[in-house]
Amino acid sequence: MTTSDTIIALATPQGVGAIAVIRLSGKDAIAITNKVFHGKDLEAQPTHTIHFGTLRDEDRSAGKTGEIVDEVLISVFKEPKSFTKENVVEISTHGSQYIVKQVVKLLLKKGARLAKPGEFTQRAFLNGQFDLAQAEAVADLINSDTEASHQAAMTQMRGGFSKEIARLREELIHFASMIELELDFGEEDVEFADRDDLKGLINKLLVVIEALIKSFDLGNVIKNGVPTVIAGKPNAGKSTLLNALLNEDRAIVSEIAGTTRDSIEDEINIDGINFRFIDTAGLRETTDTIEAIGVERTQAKMKEASLIIYMFDLVNDSITEILREVNKLENSGKPFVCVGNKIDKADPQLIKQLESNSHFVFISASEKTEIDTLKVKILELVNLDNFKSGDTVVTNIRHYDNLMQTRNALKDVLNGLGQNVTGDFLAMDIRQSLHYLGEITGEITTDDLLDNIFSKFCIGK
Amino acid sequence: MTTSDTIIALATPQGVGAIAVIRLSGKDAIAITNKVFHGKDLEAQPTHTIHFGTLRDEDRSAGKTGEIVDEVLISVFKEPKSFTKENVVEISTHGSQYIVKQVVKLLLKKGARLAKPGEFTQRAFLNGQFDLAQAEAVADLINSDTEASHQAAMTQMRGGFSKEIARLREELIHFASMIELELDFGEEDVEFADRDDLKGLINKLLVVIEALIKSFDLGNVIKNGVPTVIAGKPNAGKSTLLNALLNEDRAIVSEIAGTTRDSIEDEINIDGINFRFIDTAGLRETTDTIEAIGVERTQAKMKEASLIIYMFDLVNDSITEILREVNKLENSGKPFVCVGNKIDKADPQLIKQLESNSHFVFISASEKTEIDTLKVKILELVNLDNFKSGDTVVTNIRHYDNLMQTRNALKDVLNGLGQNVTGDFLAMDIRQSLHYLGEITGEITTDDLLDNIFSKFCIGK
Repeated sequence: MTTSDTIIALATPQGVGAIAVIRLSGKDAIAITNKVFHGKDLEAQPTHTIHFGTLRDEDRSAGKTGEIVDEVLISVFKEPKSFTKENVVEISTHGSQYIVKQVVKLLLKKGARLAKPGEFTQRAFLNGQFDLAQAEAVADLINSDTEASHQAAMTQMRGGFSKEIARLREELIHFASMIELELDFGEEDVEFADRDDLKGLINKLLVVIEALIKSFDLGNVIKNGVPTVIAGKPNAGKSTLLNALLNEDRAIVSEIAGTTRDSIEDEINIDGINFRFIDTAGLRETTDTIEAIGVERTQAKMKEASLIIYMFDLVNDSITEILREVNKLENSGKPFVCVGNKIDKADPQLIKQLESNSHFVFISASEKTEIDTLKVKILELVNLDNFKSGDTVVTNIRHYDNLMQTRNALKDVLNGLGQNVTGDFLAMDIRQSLHYLGEITGEITTDDLLDNIFSKFCIGK
Repeated sequence: MTTSDTIIALATPQGVGAIAVIRLSGKDAIAITNKVFHGKDLEAQPTHTIHFGTLRDEDRSAGKTGEIVDEVLISVFKEPKSFTKENVVEISTHGSQYIVKQVVKLLLKKGARLAKPGEFTQRAFLNGQFDLAQAEAVADLINSDTEASHQAAMTQMRGGFSKEIARLREELIHFASMIELELDFGEEDVEFADRDDLKGLINKLLVVIEALIKSFDLGNVIKNGVPTVIAGKPNAGKSTLLNALLNEDRAIVSEIAGTTRDSIEDEINIDGINFRFIDTAGLRETTDTIEAIGVERTQAKMKEASLIIYMFDLVNDSITEILREVNKLENSGKPFVCVGNKIDKADPQLIKQLESNSHFVFISASEKTEIDTLKVKILELVNLDNFKSGDTVVTNIRHYDNLMQTRNALKDVLNGLGQNVTGDFLAMDIRQSLHYLGEITGEITTDDLLDNIFSKFCIGK
């Protein structure tokens, strides 16, 4: 990885717009642009200034005017005061794809090279603009399409999560060095690191790490939506409920351009959280009671789901049937809500019998009665309260994996302490947990790791 | 039309990218942004400077920090040194549609309003940044997708065409004022404006205007592509030729995102000019010789075309047949090229007989032989030499209409001079031509005219 060359890419989306922005980064970014910019001498301009002029297919130094490619605004950022901490130029052109192509071609000819996906952010990371978890949050931020995912990405980008990890590492590093100091004294059998203090610290760290690991369920929901199954006997009103939920939100969903019609039909944004409804056609075909969930395919769908909406037909289901199903749901271990449908036609006596059961919401899907009550109930089950209170939430599966590894290594330390193993073994396990924590924020990296992370970015970021 | 309020719109294309740019223009553009920008005081910053900070859902003046909508770069342009000659702010956000929506919402709440299509450019025009023909060229520039259309739009945007029109108007205005001076002297029957000089001037102007009118054929081709028909008997190799032409250029064409598969199949970029191939299926179905062009639908297609590629089957067509068709093409008045196909299997004697005919190109469509020769021939027929030499080319149908009206009014002046009509009649016709010329550059405008022009722009421009 060399960062001495100058990279170029379109930074704004493809397509026709009023303007397009092309970005260059590298030691020669300003010098290269300056060759074909006819206007002020860009190299003589202070950082964070904007300059109007023309880009021409002819070096200014050649004294010829050349053919005008476009009238542009050039933003100059001088190292280290830029996104990548290198010299950066942003060229704001008229928003024609033809012009963008010509400008990029022209600057490639003058010595820039096309940026790889995520290369701007990668350089920002390598130059110490932010750590790896923050760099990853940049991609999440761009892809976030709900309030919750936006907030989680923003918190992570601004270093909330990194601070938490850094704090944990720091405490561990202190103990690690103490123990390693003991090793230096070799045979003298001194103990600089108090073993009880260390045990206390590890237990404290494990509590924090367990909490972060646990937050991934929530983080995953925030980032990818809540996989939700609407289950129940045929004619319980499942499709009607789905339609009722979709109709209400179709407008909001369709505000998000690029969402295909297909996924609009299956995805609902409720109060800033996406719910991905898993097609339960299979379920409907192959079962008529929850007992038949044993069918392999359907079971798989239920397993994918992190939330089950189970619908009862209050007109046709008996209280015995209903309570039997509720009992099975309770034993399933999944969050679920029971929906008593058709309240407009149901026996009030039956409703009364179920009312005290906190799992129940009573609606009429066809009349669209109490749909909002159901939504509130669903949101309660997802339990975003933790998130809204500003806690750090893990949304990235790589971080989750590393936290799991850290936990295992810390448990090894704890076991070692219990068995009074020697300092060198303890040090090894502590170093192991430091390694996994360090990989999260990029204090420890490999080329493979970086390639894997940044290749998933879009070009121009 | 009030330009005192502050307008806002996304200036970059919709979609996911590294960054998005939101633009505000108006007296309060900087003040409105400043309310929610947490960083330097934007109102105290000089023009053409860039500032990093956060946008928050809370007025800075309120002393609260608020929730961060995004980390942004703000570009400040102070009137009159901006595109619209008003205060302009460009907000560079992370390229998420969610963020764009939130930022726009936030600034609407603080006093901006959504811009109408073309409203930024309209304000630039109303504030004297450029004239109407130049403003129209901005839209052409954004939509240009070939070298030729880009060059024509660039020339027009930079005022080439406007200068030409202004020069014509100036000369006319001089004579108009002379003649109107005569009218002031009423009965005294003086002649300040020499009638022979006026006649000379009008004739000179007519030559220029005729040339501009004539350039519209070319301009239309440059802007909209060349409507081209590939005609000929069945099995002459028309489809094979189309495929041969398309295959070679498919890569180039597909570089232009947003071009649908359908239009890729029908449009070819040859040396910077688009050729729109008109489906001649009808032709193929209803005729087997050019005689049957009489069929109404096919005739219509031939009329639309400004170029005909007529294919002959050198294996099966006789010299008599061929020469008869060529004769008919010559009488059609349309530019055409005769393609002798299947040279790989043809009688060399037949090729020899046709070789001297300058309309002919000999190819093998199936072998893709001499396809480039055909392309050169097609380009010759479109005759871009005029354009490439840097002449002004009319590409806008509104300008074309106004030039036609100007020509008619000038001819009326000429007729009047021939019939020795009085100065007041001459003055009227001269004023008429001044009016039409003035509408081109917007020295004379109506609200309807402006609405009509700018409503065709995209929002954000």
